[in-house]
Amino acid sequence: MAVSPKADAHKTKRSSRIKIQDVARMAQVSLSTVSGVLNEKDNIRPETRQRVLDVIEQLGYTPNIFASNLARRRTKLIGIIVSDLLNPFFAEIAKALDTQARALGYETFLASTSFHPEQQYAAVRQMLALRVAGIAMMTSENDPEAFSLLKSSGTPTVYLDNPHAGPHIGTVRVDKRHGMFIAVQHLLELGHRRILLIKNSQQSLSEPPEPPMLSHMERQIGFEEALLQYNPKEMDVHIIDEAGEPAAAGLRAVQRALERYRFTAVVAINDLVALGAFRGLQAAGLSIPEDVSVVGFDNTYLCDFLHPPLTTVATPRGDLARSVLSMLNAYIDGAEQPSEPMLSASIVLRESTAKPPAD
Amino acid sequence: MAVSPKADAHKTKRSSRIKIQDVARMAQVSLSTVSGVLNEKDNIRPETRQRVLDVIEQLGYTPNIFASNLARRRTKLIGIIVSDLLNPFFAEIAKALDTQARALGYETFLASTSFHPEQQYAAVRQMLALRVAGIAMMTSENDPEAFSLLKSSGTPTVYLDNPHAGPHIGTVRVDKRHGMFIAVQHLLELGHRRILLIKNSQQSLSEPPEPPMLSHMERQIGFEEALLQYNPKEMDVHIIDEAGEPAAAGLRAVQRALERYRFTAVVAINDLVALGAFRGLQAAGLSIPEDVSVVGFDNTYLCDFLHPPLTTVATPRGDLARSVLSMLNAYIDGAEQPSEPMLSASIVLRESTAKPPAD
Repeated sequence: MAVSPKADAHKTKRSSRIKIQDVARMAQVSLSTVSGVLNEKDNIRPETRQRVLDVIEQLGYTPNIFASNLARRRTKLIGIIVSDLLNPFFAEIAKALDTQARALGYETFLASTSFHPEQQYAAVRQMLALRVAGIAMMTSENDPEAFSLLKSSGTPTVYLDNPHAGPHIGTVRVDKRHGMFIAVQHLLELGHRRILLIKNSQQSLSEPPEPPMLSHMERQIGFEEALLQYNPKEMDVHIIDEAGEPAAAGLRAVQRALERYRFTAVVAINDLVALGAFRGLQAAGLSIPEDVSVVGFDNTYLCDFLHPPLTTVATPRGDLARSVLSMLNAYIDGAEQPSEPMLSASIVLRESTAKPPAD
Repeated sequence: MAVSPKADAHKTKRSSRIKIQDVARMAQVSLSTVSGVLNEKDNIRPETRQRVLDVIEQLGYTPNIFASNLARRRTKLIGIIVSDLLNPFFAEIAKALDTQARALGYETFLASTSFHPEQQYAAVRQMLALRVAGIAMMTSENDPEAFSLLKSSGTPTVYLDNPHAGPHIGTVRVDKRHGMFIAVQHLLELGHRRILLIKNSQQSLSEPPEPPMLSHMERQIGFEEALLQYNPKEMDVHIIDEAGEPAAAGLRAVQRALERYRFTAVVAINDLVALGAFRGLQAAGLSIPEDVSVVGFDNTYLCDFLHPPLTTVATPRGDLARSVLSMLNAYIDGAEQPSEPMLSASIVLRESTAKPPAD
């Protein structure tokens, strides 16, 4: 794996840069002794073994198992990596993958990155060390070094909405752009012209800042495409990108917007943001949808339990899990590059949208 | 590990019953050949190695690693097992444990049981095979065979609210009984005498049915203790135990109760059940708290975003994670049995409770 300048900067944190040679040098033993300890040969003296183990722990060395030529047991283990356990979108994906993977005879392990690219990298490194059969990378953020590691490992991997390619790496995409397009079109058809888009792109969490997340960019493009069908002079559109926990961000964004703008409809970048927007609107004494319509995104279980139930864009979790596992299975079976599915999104009309109030 | 009659019944599913002898017999090789393959000795012919690997995969054999005398690398990996990713109570515990474990230099892996004891067993087996340094068993359900496995493995383990003991196994408890006591007392002091308790003990999910979950039993005891302070003739109390997804169960329980009973207050066994109860009450045209007061349990992030915000019982997630990790660390360091903490619960007053309406 090429060491990029960025990788150098992360050297202290990213212990996979440590080589077996470093362990041997620091423990003052030969390479074959380190190898013997790693492979649990019993011809190594206890003190030597302990010294090597201590150095391995100190350096955080992880054996470069995928470069090894030894025959390896294939595990029946799928690693699932998500961005945020508290967002039901990710929890529902993880649950659907877990249920379907079990039906296929796999067990699953889950790691959460909290949107930190370096945690994505750490999770990949751990999962490779555990010899998972495949990885479902269901994250919003994207660490290029994690991708490099996956690529050189040969481990079947499927990304979500982040185009990555390799002989054993693919992407399942959901047409979020079209999903957002139809959500905004629904509001426009109801007569809304004063629209607030609340984003929660979480960029503040990565250091240095990452480029905007693709899935968020696509939603914004869909939003703008829908608006372009109408005369811009008729439109009064505001976009607030609020960082932090999504529900709290939705609440703060609505509070700020109520002080500054007039709007009759809120488009929330996801259902949790919509939950916070609901609270902000209702706490200000506004009725949904009589005063303000709200549309969410993801169709999580929360939608049915909000008051009123939330109109939202559905990105089918079951189909998504099926597509991810079917691609992983194809890679595991050594199939040719399978086709990369694009799942369609649809709008689920509940009770949070209506005509705008008369001016 | 003794094989109980129950274990026998599970034989086909629980592959750890498969012994190295079974692998050797089926692959028609000696025990030392199987052992050599497992330990990646390079003096085994490729065809033989492959045959052994095939049998291992076919039988689902997992090496009995903890019975082995070989020196083992200690991993810096904590396994977290929860019951339900979709319940923010578990997601918040997992997140708090993950954050704090990282600060201590550990990484974490998460497995979810969906309340199935056999998935708890499978997760334990996998985590032992991965040589985790310790396990945080944050589940409501309890599989006795998983406990036996943990006990014989010597792996540091901390349970939540399920008393288990061993030289390296302990329990962190939250005083849920007192938490429920003060929640009900709060309603009684406001003047409520017609109270509906909604439980969601999920028992239908296990086959054969498990005994009631301790944490639910304790909440019910706290509920009853609070009522005992008052004259039972004045009280009109109903308890509905509704199975299924908690929010949907809360909704169905309220719908059933509205047809049959009169009540001015709902005590929900957890916040998700309260979310469903909110929806059921509001869909029936009732106002919270003017017509019906609602109290939740757990103080998850949802409480602040409901309309009105939910009064609930707080079980401090940060302290809980700290206690779990501190016990695990003590076990990992080989300390004497540390003391088992009992964390106190408290009520968080928001806006979902008020005096009952005049009759």
